[in-house]
Amino acid sequence: MATTKTPDANRRSERSRRAIFDAALELVGEVGYDKLTIEGIASRAGVGKQTIYRWWPSKAAVLLDAFTADAGDEPGWELPDTGDLAADLKFVLRATVDEFNDPKFEAPYRALAVAGANDPELSEQFVNRLQDTGVQAYVERLRRAQEAGAIAEHVDLRIAAEMILSPFSQRWLMRTAPLTYDFVDTLVDLVLGGISRR
Amino acid sequence: MATTKTPDANRRSERSRRAIFDAALELVGEVGYDKLTIEGIASRAGVGKQTIYRWWPSKAAVLLDAFTADAGDEPGWELPDTGDLAADLKFVLRATVDEFNDPKFEAPYRALAVAGANDPELSEQFVNRLQDTGVQAYVERLRRAQEAGAIAEHVDLRIAAEMILSPFSQRWLMRTAPLTYDFVDTLVDLVLGGISRR
Repeated sequence: MATTKTPDANRRSERSRRAIFDAALELVGEVGYDKLTIEGIASRAGVGKQTIYRWWPSKAAVLLDAFTADAGDEPGWELPDTGDLAADLKFVLRATVDEFNDPKFEAPYRALAVAGANDPELSEQFVNRLQDTGVQAYVERLRRAQEAGAIAEHVDLRIAAEMILSPFSQRWLMRTAPLTYDFVDTLVDLVLGGISRR
Repeated sequence: MATTKTPDANRRSERSRRAIFDAALELVGEVGYDKLTIEGIASRAGVGKQTIYRWWPSKAAVLLDAFTADAGDEPGWELPDTGDLAADLKFVLRATVDEFNDPKFEAPYRALAVAGANDPELSEQFVNRLQDTGVQAYVERLRRAQEAGAIAEHVDLRIAAEMILSPFSQRWLMRTAPLTYDFVDTLVDLVLGGISRR
């Protein structure tokens, strides 16, 4: 048996991987996490079940890779740092508004968030791993601002990141109000400046 | 047929109502919103199905009344106003920490939040009605502070309330970090003062 892959075999693998990710994201948005199966993903992707099992041990593992490949927020992802903290935060949050207003992204992410809220184990292994990558990127950007003297020394950066990200997530998840550029711009200004009268 | 109830009949009605609420809250925490039925509630409460249908048109209606009776946050509920905004917010949020760390309260509320995240109609009719009562109470307290000159005039009070409440809700729903008195105290200070160095 040949163990070294030819360039053609590599291209075929990459095509299959992408087809499996697309199928997994589409299906979880359509049927929800509980009803998602490896069989269903294989059938939608036009590959054999064994192809999936060769690469991933579970549907959760497929989805985790599919989400990180898709959202581009793999570990190590960083916010821009132009030296203007407010502008950098608004830039990234406006892009996130666009992403969360796109049904193709929204449906699978919602299915996952709902499953995670219901299932502590899934949440710990998986939802938080995705979510934490995002929170950590914000914490890192805030840390650089703190080192540069723009953020007060006493500030808990994790809670500061939650003040920016949680109102966004909560509006989205509970559909309490629309996600707009105005909303994220105002949010950033209020988090930086506080609501108290100076 | 007598249409005027005797005091004994009123007491019996009140006992049945309370038993139905308790049964509904217990059951939704155990089986989730989707599998909750009027039949199941009736059986757990020890009343006939017709007793429930006489008072409520649907399981959603029973639950809405059960939650508002339980959480005590019926419309018109107000935050304390001692003149010290930070102290008043911390006081109420610490009580909410206790509530959300209590499994008896936590399980039914989570079942409902998850069902609402999944189902836009349920969310609009119901989850937001519960949640909005809470948000509105905060907005009102912030408005009084703004009128008293403690909060800057330009501040969007709805977004300010979300900055306080969403990090709390999100930690709870996604179990990303524990709900503690320290957390809510720090959150209130950061929302009021902002994170920027003065």
